[in-house]
Amino acid sequence: MGHLAVVGATGAVGVEVCEILDGRDISVDRVSLFASARSTGKRMTVRGQSIPVRELSEHSFEGVDFAIFSAGAERSRQFAPAALKAGAVVVDNSSAFRMDPNTPLVIPEINAEDAQDHRGIIANPNCSTIIMDVAVWPLHRVNPVRRIIVSTYQSASGAGGSAMDELRTQSADHLAGRKIVPRVFPHPIAFNLFSHNTPIAPDGYNTEERKMIDETRKIFHDASIAISATCIRVPVLRAHCESINLTFDRPITPDEVRGVLKTAPGVEIVDDREANRFPMPIAATGQDNVLVGRIRQDLSQSDGRGIELFVSGDQLRKGAALNAVQIVELLAR
Amino acid sequence: MGHLAVVGATGAVGVEVCEILDGRDISVDRVSLFASARSTGKRMTVRGQSIPVRELSEHSFEGVDFAIFSAGAERSRQFAPAALKAGAVVVDNSSAFRMDPNTPLVIPEINAEDAQDHRGIIANPNCSTIIMDVAVWPLHRVNPVRRIIVSTYQSASGAGGSAMDELRTQSADHLAGRKIVPRVFPHPIAFNLFSHNTPIAPDGYNTEERKMIDETRKIFHDASIAISATCIRVPVLRAHCESINLTFDRPITPDEVRGVLKTAPGVEIVDDREANRFPMPIAATGQDNVLVGRIRQDLSQSDGRGIELFVSGDQLRKGAALNAVQIVELLAR
Repeated sequence: MGHLAVVGATGAVGVEVCEILDGRDISVDRVSLFASARSTGKRMTVRGQSIPVRELSEHSFEGVDFAIFSAGAERSRQFAPAALKAGAVVVDNSSAFRMDPNTPLVIPEINAEDAQDHRGIIANPNCSTIIMDVAVWPLHRVNPVRRIIVSTYQSASGAGGSAMDELRTQSADHLAGRKIVPRVFPHPIAFNLFSHNTPIAPDGYNTEERKMIDETRKIFHDASIAISATCIRVPVLRAHCESINLTFDRPITPDEVRGVLKTAPGVEIVDDREANRFPMPIAATGQDNVLVGRIRQDLSQSDGRGIELFVSGDQLRKGAALNAVQIVELLAR
Repeated sequence: MGHLAVVGATGAVGVEVCEILDGRDISVDRVSLFASARSTGKRMTVRGQSIPVRELSEHSFEGVDFAIFSAGAERSRQFAPAALKAGAVVVDNSSAFRMDPNTPLVIPEINAEDAQDHRGIIANPNCSTIIMDVAVWPLHRVNPVRRIIVSTYQSASGAGGSAMDELRTQSADHLAGRKIVPRVFPHPIAFNLFSHNTPIAPDGYNTEERKMIDETRKIFHDASIAISATCIRVPVLRAHCESINLTFDRPITPDEVRGVLKTAPGVEIVDDREANRFPMPIAATGQDNVLVGRIRQDLSQSDGRGIELFVSGDQLRKGAALNAVQIVELLAR
């Protein structure tokens, strides 16, 4: 049994971590909640217990066994050393340590064994990476994926609770004929969409796209996979979608793909052509599984090595909070 | 000078046709408006003149030189013969005649010459096809495109004015905590997205995707282009976006692409990496040009033959009404 600290407890991911703890048989008997001074004094209910939110400091980690950080890269860099010093293992939701060669980057369905090889910090991948990789990995295992071309449809939740509020507020403003004033996002999000607003490298790829490329290669332990990504923010509250085009080493059929994904952990096939029912954000919201559908041969590859997929996964849940809790479960075993 | 009939005048595309007539130097001196009995008695202002909307019948086309049909495939099939019999040339916005080998399928920026070879009907391509092809054609001319992988972000307007109303109503209902009841679309559209709700063929591709594939090959006069498409409806009012991955015959650089597109008709480059400003639906709305940005090398192709683009075009304008008016202009010259 252990003591878990949730850092960034009042943020969108932190709240989700607390909710997920309710439903899981995790070897944790004590939970402490930390946030910035602004949230101090609030109380949150975790597993039926009302727990105070305390201000995060370097002294927060005494007696803590596991700390889930979801308070941004800057805070992770600042406070992870204190957690390590106190003997806690850090599961970090930020991008701070993901590409550090000494830090395992773990999706439990894919590379759980990497989690055992940590030096105090285990990184949680980017949400878009997790949602894609959970669907692609089971296929990669039976027929190596040589190339991935992905276009994302990312929800507001990826930018936090304030971004979800902005989508609601702007939508109401637009409907009422009021002027829209972007605050969280650089562009209007209501009834609009735009290229992911992360910095853009000289090669033209933004940071989100670069994460999908680099993290997937690290998690799959395969630097040779060719990947191109286009990341787009859409006016959806939570749950990301991704249109994924795959090229395999050998020919593969949609039926083979269905056969593999049917028993794949963390995957649910939603692929009802008759009823035109496929993965949608509102269906993925609150779900642990990544929904996979539109499974079909890529008509642009005549050699039968191409497959098209459309997936949806809850960005706050499997894309962040659930994956982190699963990593703690791996460690607490 | 000629007499133009607008069939389906009160629909989303018909209204747009009337607006576009205002601003263009088109050789038409008389405009007649037709719709279903429901709209009879309404009046619409075209070029400053109030014109009555009359009920469409087989006798509507006496003296008509050009008829733009935007009332759905069924009505086109039913009434185009009467228009032809009366001596009118039909520019048809529906899918009814697009793949008929005797009917030219025309985007004036690409294959204006095909319009001259008609037998009374000229088909206007699907909106998603037009928006993609206007951006891809100028590149195809200088370096043949061998493969296209496209994922769309399609607005509600593609399903007509009632679909736009549904997006507004559902958004208001969701914000007010009321239950959402889909009527036009089969799934909720507010704060959600879903696979394009057209029938799905045994190969798993829906009709919209099939249109993008077949129509592009017909317009480009190149049946060899390998194309795969994934068509998705998003909660945007009008203007479609498309994430386009291209493979060329020979290596090509983003700078070459920019050089070609800078002077391409119907194209505006919006590609400001510093300001993170790229094509967006709210920027494309009301514009004649297709906005093209996120121009970059496809990192998944090591031979330099791959380019990624993100484009946005007004679905009602260049995707439908404007293209049809441009075709009439070609004929009326």
